[in-house]
Order: sequence, then structure tokens, then C-alpha cells
Amino acid sequence: MPFTKKSQKAGLAPGTLIYIGDQKEENLKIHVINYGPHHCEEKSVPTIKECLSYVTAESVTWINITGVHDVKTIQELGELFGIHALVLEDVVNTTNRPKLDQYDDCVYILLKMLYSEPASHLIKHEQISLILGAGYVISLQEVEGDVFDPIRERLKKGNGRIRTQGSDYLAYALIDTIVDNYFAVLEQIAEKIEDLQDQVIEDPDEDLLGVIQQLKHEMVFVRRSIWPMREIVTALIRDESKLIGENIDLYLRDLYDHTLQVIDSVDSLRDMLSGLMDVYLSSISNRMNQVMKVLTIMATIFIPLTFIAGIYGMNFKHMPELEWKWSYPLLWLLIITIFVGMITWLRRRKWF
Amino acid sequence: MPFTKKSQKAGLAPGTLIYIGDQKEENLKIHVINYGPHHCEEKSVPTIKECLSYVTAESVTWINITGVHDVKTIQELGELFGIHALVLEDVVNTTNRPKLDQYDDCVYILLKMLYSEPASHLIKHEQISLILGAGYVISLQEVEGDVFDPIRERLKKGNGRIRTQGSDYLAYALIDTIVDNYFAVLEQIAEKIEDLQDQVIEDPDEDLLGVIQQLKHEMVFVRRSIWPMREIVTALIRDESKLIGENIDLYLRDLYDHTLQVIDSVDSLRDMLSGLMDVYLSSISNRMNQVMKVLTIMATIFIPLTFIAGIYGMNFKHMPELEWKWSYPLLWLLIITIFVGMITWLRRRKWF
Amino acid sequence: MPFTKKSQKAGLAPGTLIYIGDQKEENLKIHVINYGPHHCEEKSVPTIKECLSYVTAESVTWINITGVHDVKTIQELGELFGIHALVLEDVVNTTNRPKLDQYDDCVYILLKMLYSEPASHLIKHEQISLILGAGYVISLQEVEGDVFDPIRERLKKGNGRIRTQGSDYLAYALIDTIVDNYFAVLEQIAEKIEDLQDQVIEDPDEDLLGVIQQLKHEMVFVRRSIWPMREIVTALIRDESKLIGENIDLYLRDLYDHTLQVIDSVDSLRDMLSGLMDVYLSSISNRMNQVMKVLTIMATIFIPLTFIAGIYGMNFKHMPELEWKWSYPLLWLLIITIFVGMITWLRRRKWF
Amino acid sequence: MPFTKKSQKAGLAPGTLIYIGDQKEENLKIHVINYGPHHCEEKSVPTIKECLSYVTAESVTWINITGVHDVKTIQELGELFGIHALVLEDVVNTTNRPKLDQYDDCVYILLKMLYSEPASHLIKHEQISLILGAGYVISLQEVEGDVFDPIRERLKKGNGRIRTQGSDYLAYALIDTIVDNYFAVLEQIAEKIEDLQDQVIEDPDEDLLGVIQQLKHEMVFVRRSIWPMREIVTALIRDESKLIGENIDLYLRDLYDHTLQVIDSVDSLRDMLSGLMDVYLSSISNRMNQVMKVLTIMATIFIPLTFIAGIYGMNFKHMPELEWKWSYPLLWLLIITIFVGMITWLRRRKWF
Amino acid sequence: MPFTKKSQKAGLAPGTLIYIGDQKEENLKIHVINYGPHHCEEKSVPTIKECLSYVTAESVTWINITGVHDVKTIQELGELFGIHALVLEDVVNTTNRPKLDQYDDCVYILLKMLYSEPASHLIKHEQISLILGAGYVISLQEVEGDVFDPIRERLKKGNGRIRTQGSDYLAYALIDTIVDNYFAVLEQIAEKIEDLQDQVIEDPDEDLLGVIQQLKHEMVFVRRSIWPMREIVTALIRDESKLIGENIDLYLRDLYDHTLQVIDSVDSLRDMLSGLMDVYLSSISNRMNQVMKVLTIMATIFIPLTFIAGIYGMNFKHMPELEWKWSYPLLWLLIITIFVGMITWLRRRKWF
Repeated sequence: MPFTKKSQKAGLAPGTLIYIGDQKEENLKIHVINYGPHHCEEKSVPTIKECLSYVTAESVTWINITGVHDVKTIQELGELFGIHALVLEDVVNTTNRPKLDQYDDCVYILLKMLYSEPASHLIKHEQISLILGAGYVISLQEVEGDVFDPIRERLKKGNGRIRTQGSDYLAYALIDTIVDNYFAVLEQIAEKIEDLQDQVIEDPDEDLLGVIQQLKHEMVFVRRSIWPMREIVTALIRDESKLIGENIDLYLRDLYDHTLQVIDSVDSLRDMLSGLMDVYLSSISNRMNQVMKVLTIMATIFIPLTFIAGIYGMNFKHMPELEWKWSYPLLWLLIITIFVGMITWLRRRKWF
Repeated sequence: MPFTKKSQKAGLAPGTLIYIGDQKEENLKIHVINYGPHHCEEKSVPTIKECLSYVTAESVTWINITGVHDVKTIQELGELFGIHALVLEDVVNTTNRPKLDQYDDCVYILLKMLYSEPASHLIKHEQISLILGAGYVISLQEVEGDVFDPIRERLKKGNGRIRTQGSDYLAYALIDTIVDNYFAVLEQIAEKIEDLQDQVIEDPDEDLLGVIQQLKHEMVFVRRSIWPMREIVTALIRDESKLIGENIDLYLRDLYDHTLQVIDSVDSLRDMLSGLMDVYLSSISNRMNQVMKVLTIMATIFIPLTFIAGIYGMNFKHMPELEWKWSYPLLWLLIITIFVGMITWLRRRKWF
Repeated sequence: MPFTKKSQKAGLAPGTLIYIGDQKEENLKIHVINYGPHHCEEKSVPTIKECLSYVTAESVTWINITGVHDVKTIQELGELFGIHALVLEDVVNTTNRPKLDQYDDCVYILLKMLYSEPASHLIKHEQISLILGAGYVISLQEVEGDVFDPIRERLKKGNGRIRTQGSDYLAYALIDTIVDNYFAVLEQIAEKIEDLQDQVIEDPDEDLLGVIQQLKHEMVFVRRSIWPMREIVTALIRDESKLIGENIDLYLRDLYDHTLQVIDSVDSLRDMLSGLMDVYLSSISNRMNQVMKVLTIMATIFIPLTFIAGIYGMNFKHMPELEWKWSYPLLWLLIITIFVGMITWLRRRKWF
Repeated sequence: MPFTKKSQKAGLAPGTLIYIGDQKEENLKIHVINYGPHHCEEKSVPTIKECLSYVTAESVTWINITGVHDVKTIQELGELFGIHALVLEDVVNTTNRPKLDQYDDCVYILLKMLYSEPASHLIKHEQISLILGAGYVISLQEVEGDVFDPIRERLKKGNGRIRTQGSDYLAYALIDTIVDNYFAVLEQIAEKIEDLQDQVIEDPDEDLLGVIQQLKHEMVFVRRSIWPMREIVTALIRDESKLIGENIDLYLRDLYDHTLQVIDSVDSLRDMLSGLMDVYLSSISNRMNQVMKVLTIMATIFIPLTFIAGIYGMNFKHMPELEWKWSYPLLWLLIITIFVGMITWLRRRKWF
Repeated sequence: MPFTKKSQKAGLAPGTLIYIGDQKEENLKIHVINYGPHHCEEKSVPTIKECLSYVTAESVTWINITGVHDVKTIQELGELFGIHALVLEDVVNTTNRPKLDQYDDCVYILLKMLYSEPASHLIKHEQISLILGAGYVISLQEVEGDVFDPIRERLKKGNGRIRTQGSDYLAYALIDTIVDNYFAVLEQIAEKIEDLQDQVIEDPDEDLLGVIQQLKHEMVFVRRSIWPMREIVTALIRDESKLIGENIDLYLRDLYDHTLQVIDSVDSLRDMLSGLMDVYLSSISNRMNQVMKVLTIMATIFIPLTFIAGIYGMNFKHMPELEWKWSYPLLWLLIITIFVGMITWLRRRKWF
């Protein structure tokens, strides 16, 4: 997760719409679901303008817009729905931190959606903006592909209470789904950590260090994404405006519990990672100890023996031992004695 | 304690009952104790329905249900006792963190029961749900075997004040027993740590590191289980509802003290573990120092001697020393002098 | 960023004007912009006195003074605009920490301006003082060159709402620009860190350590500069005086979000730096392991072989092997066998 | 300070008196001091009952009971003085943390008394319970020997204001004496640390590590004993009941300052200990460096020389140098040149 | 800064005057300055009694007493000025932590004065007690020599507003001077740290470690001295009594800013010190790496060569190479080839 350029906005007037994020070519897509207790209509529309007709007092409309890099259309959206320029600025700046802003006629919630792509098992992250107004929820994504399919299913099938509730319940359901998907990401990271735990003792090479650092950065990102959720959900529960009914307070409290659980899991995994780092570092030390022991064993045994051989390689005229008949066999006896003695001594010190 | 899959619930309607935890085959068991100041009746019943008849205004009924994986029966329980769907969802999800939820007609308390099995000396953990209603307490466990036998005994024998008090006192007694059993777990961990403290200096091998890491994870789990208890007990003390009488406030404050004591003990043990880690790491360094010293002593003594032997192994025609009569004995004198000098020097540096 | 001398002021009366900072020779420069919804006049003036005439009830005047080391002129400014002596003391002491002081007729805001010079890619820092009065903003800088050019542009072109708003909005715009420029600095540090990440594994020499420490100090400085901004902006939002209108509260909240984002980025970079330090330290250990392995491999293979050669270099009269015909080829066979055996054994231990 | 068994109480009714602590055989001793402005009577009494007669409205009675393991007598004390069962439970459980409990007619204060025995210079710790009632203070200790002798002296001699004040002042004096004795313990630990600071650089062996760890554990225990004192004293100052008069608030605030000073000293010593640990660890590294340098110096100097000697030990028929007359002296010149060169090079690198 | 004995006071009545600190022989000195808008009289007086006559309603009197070890005179001071015994106890105990106590007719402020002696460049610290009463300030020092000379100068010369203000302003000026002198101490420490930064890379010997630890302890002391100042100044600002007028609130807030700046500087220096420690530790590792590399290079190059020489030093009868004419030159070729090969290989690995 590289550091994205945010500085290009310095000095510009607040509310200036500049897309900040990875460059994209895709077209903007608008998908509308209009539902009530007894109906549910789903449609893709080409322009923002067409969405407006769906927003009625009796039904709930969910407008899902994919492609926030299309600054012009976002501008249009702002004008048609009367959304404040500062909200639009945040929508198109994908480097924001999660937050909740309350306006007179809408609530703006900015979240980070994390999910593990089922096919590739890669972790994806994306900024999601939710604009909760009277009778409608606008969700804005960066690219196609999200975690909301189960909700679309529930809306279409009409099971659960979702069709009988207002737009506040829809917003809750969307946030809840995003939070629940954090678990999938954490499970994947947990699996990677468990894999590493064996490797780190067996073969602590430098690549592992890179992987551990990478996981640490990912954990920091997850933590930074989920941490502000506590305040956001608390703000939703405390909300006094008419946009969020009291009847969903119970669900918001449940959502709050889920958020705490994610934070707990993140902390658990961080503990495991720092434990992993400790094991890695002491594995390197242990490995070094092994290497040193081998060297010392070899040197300790053979250096004195080589010295003895050197003594009898000297060319002095007067070395009586050289003439004796049993010198050579006796020397071998000495060498073997020293060898066995050394081995025994090292064994007793538990060196091998 | 592996990472349990929680992500399968993402996107489902809140209140959907899905059992999350280890797969189990056992049948659900229901055990009812109905008591008052002058009687105590104990019975195993096959269905939830039969429990209902025990719940009366004059007596206290404790319904203990074992096997929360039986989602259907939990559903039935919810319907019969009018328990909120979100409570039932938490009951069957064994990965929750301890918490207390207040509803109009009941208090829901979720706890982690930790206990050391007397036979195997293994540490077991299990999620316990307590539902405190007017005149009854429902406790829900994952598997058979719990820490409540002393309470059953007290109820049957009628000693202490337990039979003369209401359901709130029963709930308190259950929580108090769970908290007190944390001490047993901590004592067992303390024993393991004390065993390790000797081993770590004598023989700091890599297996010890694994054991230390394992104990660290266990301590994190215990800490995470006991930490929310402070808020739970505080919430019980502050509770304004009629379910919890003022006469048990004194006992709850006592329970609060016990909770703080557990947390203190956990922190003590964590300090000891991190001290153990420090000792382990510096033991490895010391071990390496030992190895290096042996190598250096051997090399420092024999390398110069071998050089001297090498000198007189040269085949120059004109080497007057080779011809002298006393060369060889004098050389041995030189060798012994160097040897003794080296040993003395190393001794003075306290190398051995 | 060396430690600047602040102690020379000890014991002096409060409000004594002594310039504390790098010695400078430049002349003081005064630049005035006077604007309203329909006009914008820009002028450099030689003396403070001339500024006074621009300050009118109907227009907003921005007086930008460069060169706070000119204590005399600062004194004059204080007298003409009725600014408290303690404010002037802070203006000329460039070692202050960011803060906001409220007086009856003005608000004094002290900030650290950080920016990366486009040409040299060097990070510059400078103390900026803003004095917000009724209808005017005085900004005081240390040296020429600042981050306010986009605002001057907006004022001249009259785009955005800046010309239609009061002096409070101008002050907000100046602070916002300063905060936004922190991102540029952080981006530059982030680039350096990313460059280091590769180097640290490839070639962990001591210079890298110096660079990491340098970056750490810079991060501490940035953190210390941005951290008090949270309180400053909160104080501005809560401000009850007439100087700051309610209509800019929304913008101040936006500014608050930006501040939090900077803090988040700083924390991210600090995490990366401490990760970098970990990698550096374990790279050194790994490097040492490499060195030790080479030594051990060489020694382990050749020390026994040299011993064998030494044996047959002895000059004993009675060494039957020396006479045998196939001794020498057999010895080579033995040497090669030992050599291959050692290599195989080291390979199996994955030493190379 | 081993981990004491607390788990045996799990599941028992609250208020059940079970002594938890080291097993003891001593008999319980009761010592009564009854005093007023003009008299002071001191007596040892055999039973609790006899104490009762001393408690009058006009005088203050201090009942000091030694031997809380005598559960039966503690029970009797509770009945005679109307003390709550939960207080008695805490009195006989010597593993409690310091705390203050307020009841209608008494204040219960649990403290850890630490003192250094003057004879043996050993640090002793013991749980002290203070029960402050109207006109009396009951203090309960584990074993004989305490820090209260100076107070007994002041009572007998009647100097200071102690005889003219009520039971609240007596309780304050007892707590103050306990807190002041923490300094003696800290001074002793400080002396040990100062002794270690020299040893750790001179001779960093593994025993030192054990001593440092031991001191660390002791500091954790002291810290854990003094930390809750802040809340206890704050609770005493804030106390609204008639038991604690306003006239001793000044003394309690003084006591609070002493508590903060103890905490400060504890933190200072902890800093010193962790500094000691750093020095220990880097001393080991330095020691290793020394060892490695000696090895490297020896090897660097003699390995090339041995090679040269080896060359001229070869038995080639055609080695012209062997025949030359000045070969041998020239070789010695070469050896000496290399030797001196190496020494010079190593000196320049400051290796010795 | 050794650990001073405080335990001798344990068990004594509160308010007992015992001097705690370094033993001193000097006589007590009393210096009085009495001033008003139009006069300033300075005098040394022999006894406390004589001071009393200076204290009048119309003027401000500053009584500076040097030598708090003279317990008798301090006692007398207490009686004459009606100062509480607990204040006197704190005055003569030089191991106190900074604090502020409010009494009905005076404010007692205890501070640590730190200053760098201009001549010796040594850091001195001393306990200063300020007693602020109506119309007078009593300052009590341990030894002669303080940081108040600039204030005496301002009083005598009558510049600034000090002569026109009351005793509260004098107290403020004294505290402000003490705080400003912390900067001098920090600057000196900063210089030492900057000196160390070069040394630590060049020559990381064990003495440096001692110096770093020493600086760390000094920083802890400075931090502990300045930290409580925040509360003290806050208490002065919030003070409701008549002793401290509202007109100096602005100056107290300025003082508060200075305090925060000192704390910031302390934290900066602590960061630098811990960075220094990191550099020191990794410098030792790097040094070890250097040593190991030299050893490995020497051994890697010469061990195989020595083996080759050993081979041809063998005395086998049948070694055809020994007879060949070009053997010896060819062997040298082989040796040079291996030598150059090794050097090249080590160069490519960047070992030297």
C-alpha cells in the first residue's frame, strides 16, 4: 500500500473537486434499487438525473455509483441532490480516513471496504462513501466489485426485515456488511501467520522478514481503517436527527460489538506478528550459534593435533623420538586419545 | 487457540442464527434447578417447553442448557422466553468477546469460562451465556463440564444465603465462580513459568521459545477474557432496573475486587514472561560467548606454536639451529613457556 | 535540526523582544493585499504605518511581513495595531511550539510551516505567526518564500468564495494551506523510506543507520509541529468571539479532518521507519551469519585435511606408509572423499 | 514472591472465611492501647471480648491483632464489633490488593506493609488490615514485628498532637508510617542497584541477570503495593462520613504527597534497572567483541606466517631458494616485516 | 544523583522538622529586598525577626533565605510568619517533588532550580521553596548561588513593570526565571549528545555507554522536575484567592507555554538519546562484523593455501610431482591463482 500523493490539493479552495487515487479509465456506472415492503425494482441507469425520479416518500432508493474518478458526474450528483461541496471533495479523494459528517438533510459516512477476492485470495481495499438522506442511500465506490451482493439478494427475495424498514436500516446493513468482511481479511492474514510460524523456526531467511513486515503494514492499514468505526457507530447511535430512527439503535449496538471484535482480532494478530518477529530474531541467533559450534568443534579438535604433527615434521638433527621404533604408533595412540577426549568433553557440555 | 472463521456471516440479516465454533455432535441437554428458601428441586428435562412450567413468581429457576450448537432449540428457547434475536445470535456465536446487554425484561451477560481440568491439568475455555430474567437465570454452555458444581451443592444443601435470595444473586454467584476459576488457570500458568525459569538458563534451546510464545498467547487470551469483566460488573452495579436488587451491590463490589485481582495477576505473569524472554535471549548470547571463548583459547594457544613448529619444518640447507645439539629441548622449553604464558594471560582476563 | 539557544532570555522581563533563531541579514518586507467582493489591491509598502490606512471596515486586509528578526519594526507593529507584548515576544522567538492565544480584539495563532522546495527537493521549515483582527490578518514569516501563492492567486482571480468572506475565512485558508503542505513533506519522506527499504536488505552499512536516524528526527519534528494543530483547530471551532463567524465552522471541521489525516500519515511513516530499523538490525545479523558460514565452511573442510597432510610430513624413521607405492594416490583419494563428504553434509544442512 | 494459591475459594459462598497465605503455627496475640489527651493505657489481652470494654466514647482504642490465620478468632471479632463478613474474608486472605471499602459504621483499609528488617537487611512484606470505627482502630497483621513502634512511643510519651486527636488521626498515622517505610525498602534496593552498576561492566556473568530479574520482580511488587494507595488516600480525603474529620485533611494531603514521592522513586529505580539491563546486554556484546578481536589478531598474524613456513617445508627437488645461503635469514626478515606490518595495521584500526 | 535517605522520618509526627539532604556547614543568610513603584531597598539582615518590619501593606518584600539546613531558624520563621508546620517540614526536606499547596493566608510553591554554572559548565540542582503571602514572597534555597540575579537587577533599575506590580508578580517572575533556566541545562545536554553522536559511530567503547546512561538519568531528573510544573502553573491560573490577581493570568499562561516548551525539548532530547543508544548498539554489531570479516578473509585465503603447502611437505617415497622440474614454479602459479580468485570473489561480495 504505497503512499498516495495528496499534496497536489494544497492551497486550492475547499470544495474543489480533484480525484486523488489510482488512475482509472472505466466508465461510471449507476445502479438503482427502489424498494418498499411489497416491491423491489432494480435498474442500471445511464445518468444521475434519471435516479431522481426513483426517490419518493413512500419507498427507499439505493443508488450505487461505481467510479468516483468521474469528477464531472459527481459534481452533477451534488447539484441534483443538494450535497455540500465538502462532501463531494471527500468522495473523490480516496485517501481519506473513515469519518462521519452530519449535515442538515443528510449524513455522510466514509468507510474503507476490505474484502478478500474469492477467486484470487487477494486482499482488496476500496473507499466507500455512503450518503444517507430522507428515503435514499447513495453509495459511491472506486471500482466494480463489492461485498453488497448478499444485501441485494435480501432486498430482492424480501427475507428478513430489510424491506419493511427505512433508508437508515439500509445504511446500517451496508456498514454491517463492510465490517463483517473485515473478518474474512483477518482470517486470511491469520492463515498466513500460522504458515509463517513453522517456517520461521525451520528456515529463518531474509525473505521471511519481508513477509512479516508486509503483514505488519497490512495490519496497520486494517487497524487504521477499523479504529474510527467505533466513533462513527457511536455517533450514529447518539444521532438525534430524524434520519436515523430509534428502532435501529439495537442493531447499531450490535454493529458496535462487531467493531470491537474486529479490533480485538486485529490486536491478537498484531501480538502474534510481534511474537513471530521475536522468534525470527532468536532463530537467527540460534542459527549463528549452530554455525559457531561447528567451527569451534572442528578447530578445537584438529588445531592441537595439527600442532603435534607439526612438531614431528621439524628437521632438527637431534630429535631422539624420530629414531625410536614405536614412535609412530604411539603418536597415533596420542592423537586418538586427544580426539576421543575432546569429543567426550564437548559431549558433556552438550555441544552435540 | 486458532483463529475461528467468523466471516461466513458477512451480509446476512442481523439475528440470523448460525452456530460459529468447533463442530460438535453431542445432543443438547437441559438441566433445571428450581429453589426457594425452603425447597430445591433438580431435574433434567428433554425440551425447553417443559422448563417454562418451573418459572414461577415465588421461586428462582436456573435453567442450564449444554450445547449451543443446536440452533433449532436455541431458536425455540428465544420464542418461549421472548428473547431478542440478537441475543440468540450471540449465544450461538462462540467467538464473541465478553459483554453485557440490557433489555427491557432481561439482562444478557456473555462470559468466557476458563478452568483447569482437574484430571488432565489442561486449560479449557468455553463461552457461557447468562440470561437473567425475573425469577430465572438461563445459562448456556458449549459442552458438558463446568465450574458450577459448588453452587449446585450450595443450592442443594441450602447453606449460605443463596436459597433466600433472588435470581440476581444466583447470576452473581455464577459470575463470581467463573472469575474465581481464573485463578486456577493462572496458578497453572505460574507453575509452568517457574519451571521454565530454571530451564531457560541451563539449556536455552528453541523449544523453550515455542513454550514461552505459547504461554504468551494464553496470557493474551486470559487478559482479553477478563478485561471486559470490569465494565460488565460496573454495569451490573450501576444497573437501575428491577432485575438487580440493591442488596447485592456489596457482593458485586467484592466481585469487582476479584476481577481487579485477576487482572493484577495476569499483569504479574506477563511481566514474568517478558523477563523470561529477556533471560532466554541473553542466555543464547552467553552460550555463544562460551563457544567463542573455547575457540579463541584453543586458537590463541596453538596457532603460534604451530607456526614455530612450521619454521623448523622448513628444508633450507643453511639453518644453523637444526644442527645444534640442544635445539630440540630448547624448542620444547620455548613451547612450554609460550603455553604457560598464554594460559596465565587468559586466566588473568578471567576467560576460564 | 539543531537545538537552538533559548536560554539567553532567562530572567528578562516578559514581553522583552529578543529575536531567537538563525542570524539573518535580509531586510524586512511588507506586502499588503486589500480585497472585497469586487476588488483586490496588492502592494508592497516600506513601513508598517502605511499598512494602517488599508484596514477598513468594508474590506479585508492581509498584511504579510517577512523577516521577524527586525525586532524594531515588530515593536512598531505592536504599537500601531495594539498587539500585546507577549504576542510580539512569541513572534520573534522562532523556537516556539504551535499554539493559539485569544485576546479581546485579536486571535494569535503560531504555526510551523513545512514545505518541500520544488527546485531542490529540500524540506524547509519556518515559523508563521497569524494575527487575526477585525477586518485584517497579519502573517509574519522568517524568510521569503512560502506556500501561500495559490491563495494570492485565488484572491487576485476572485474564484472560489474567498473574496466574499471575511478575515476569518482568510485565516482559515492560510492555515489550511499550511496543513496541506505537510502532505508534500510526508510524501518526500515516504519516497526516501521506500528507497531505503531496498538498500537496507542489500547493503546494510552504517550510513543507512544515520539516514534512518535523520528521518526519525524529521518525523519527530513534523509530529511535534502538527500535533498541537488539533487543539488549535478545536479552539477555533469552539471560539465564541465575533472574530470567527459560524459560517466557517464547516470549513474548520474539514481542516480538522485534514489535521487528523496528517497525524495518521505521520504515524504510518513512523511505523515504517521502525520496521526499517528492525530490518536493518536483522540484516546486520544475517550478514554476520553469512560471514561466519564462509569461515566455518572453509575451516571445517580444510582443517582436517591439513592435519592429514601434517601427519605424513612427519620425519619418523619408522612410518611404513611412507614407503608404500600407492600411499600417495590413496591419500588423495582420502582427501577427496573427506572433501566431498563435508560438502555434502554442509549442503544437507542448507549452509550453501 | 511466589504465586499463592487463591483458587481453592472458587465457588464458595462470599464471606466464607478461609485463610489464604503461608501456613503458620503461632498463636494469635491481641494488644490494646487506650488513650486520651491525658492518659495512655497499654495491655495485652487474651481474648477479643476483653477488648470491647476499652472502647468508650471519650477515649481512642487501638486494638492490634497479630495472626490472621486464626480464622475462629477473626470470626469472633466480626461478631463482637459487627464487621461485615466480606471484610473478614479479605482480612484472612493475604493475597488481596490494597483497597478501601466504606461501610455505614466503619472504614476498611487493606494495605501492604513493606519494611527492611534492621538486623538481617532483608525486605519483609505483610498484609495489614485497618478497621476504623467510631473511637477505635483495629489493625490486623500476619506475623509479629511491624513498623508501628514509633507511633506506640508517641502515644506513650504524649508528644506531638496524636493523643489529642481522634481515631481518624491514629489511622492516618498508621498509614503514613507504612508509606514512609517504603522509602527504607527503596533505599535498600537502590543500594543493590548501585552495587550492580559496577559489577555489570566488569564481569557481566549470568548470575547478575538473575539478580536484575529478581530486583525487577521486587520493584513490580512494590509498585503494585503503592499504586492503589493514591486512590485510597484520595477516597479518605473525599470521605463525607463522620468517621474522618475535616481537620486531618491537611495531613491526608501530605500523605498523598508522600505516596506520589514513593511512586516517583519506584519509577526512578525502574528506569535505573532497565538501564542496568541495557548495560548488561551491551557488556556481553562488548565481551564477545573482545574475544573475537583476540582470535582475529592471533589468526591474522600467524596464519600467513604459517603458510610461508609451510611453503619452505615442501619437499620439491627443484626449489632454488632452499640452496641459497641467505635464504633463512632473509625469511626471518620477511616474517618480522609481516609481523610488524600486521601489528601496525591493527594498531591503526585501534584493535589493541 | 544518588538516592537520598528519606526513611529516617518514618513514624515521626507530621510537621517534625528534620533536614534531609547533603550535610552542610554554611551559615544561614537572609537577604531582604523591599520595593514599591518608586523605591527599592536591599539589605542583608542577621535574623528573621528583623525582616518582619519590612513587610508593609504598601510595599512588596522579598525575603531570600539561603541555608535550609538551619532547622532552628526555619522553625523561627514559621512562628513569626504563621506558616504551617507541614510547609516547614517540606522546606527542610530537599528530596520533595515540585508541588503547590494552598493555605488560607499563603501559597506554598516547591520547585527544583536547575542551572548550568557559567564557570565550570556543571549542571547544578537545588530545591527552592517560595512562600507567597500578602505583600511578601519568601524564597528558601539550599546553598548560595541562584538564577535570580536578573530579577534583582530589574528591581534595582526599575525597568519593566515589576516594581509597579504586587507580590504575585514577583513570585511569577521567580518561577519564570527558574523555568527559563531549564533551557540552559537542556542546551548543555544537547551539546553533549551532539558530541556523542560522532563518537558513537567512530569508536563505540564502553565508556560511551556510561555517558549515555548518565545523560539518561539526568534527563529523567529534569523531566521529573518540570513535569509537575504544568499542574502548579494551572493551579496558579485557576487560583481564586486574593493572593494572585487576575492581571497576571496572561503572564501565567505565557509561563505555562514555556513549561510545555521545556517538556517538548526534554522529549526531543530523550528521543535523541534513545536514537543514540540504538546507534551505539548497532555500531558494536558493525564493529563485530568488521572483526569477523577480517578473520574470515584471512582464514579463507590462507587455509587452503596452507593445505596445499602441507601436501607437498609430505615425505612419501613415491610422489612423482616432487621430482618434476617445473613443479615448484607451477605450484606458485596455483597459489597465486587461488589467491587472486579468492580476493576477486570476496570483492564481488563487497567484503572489502
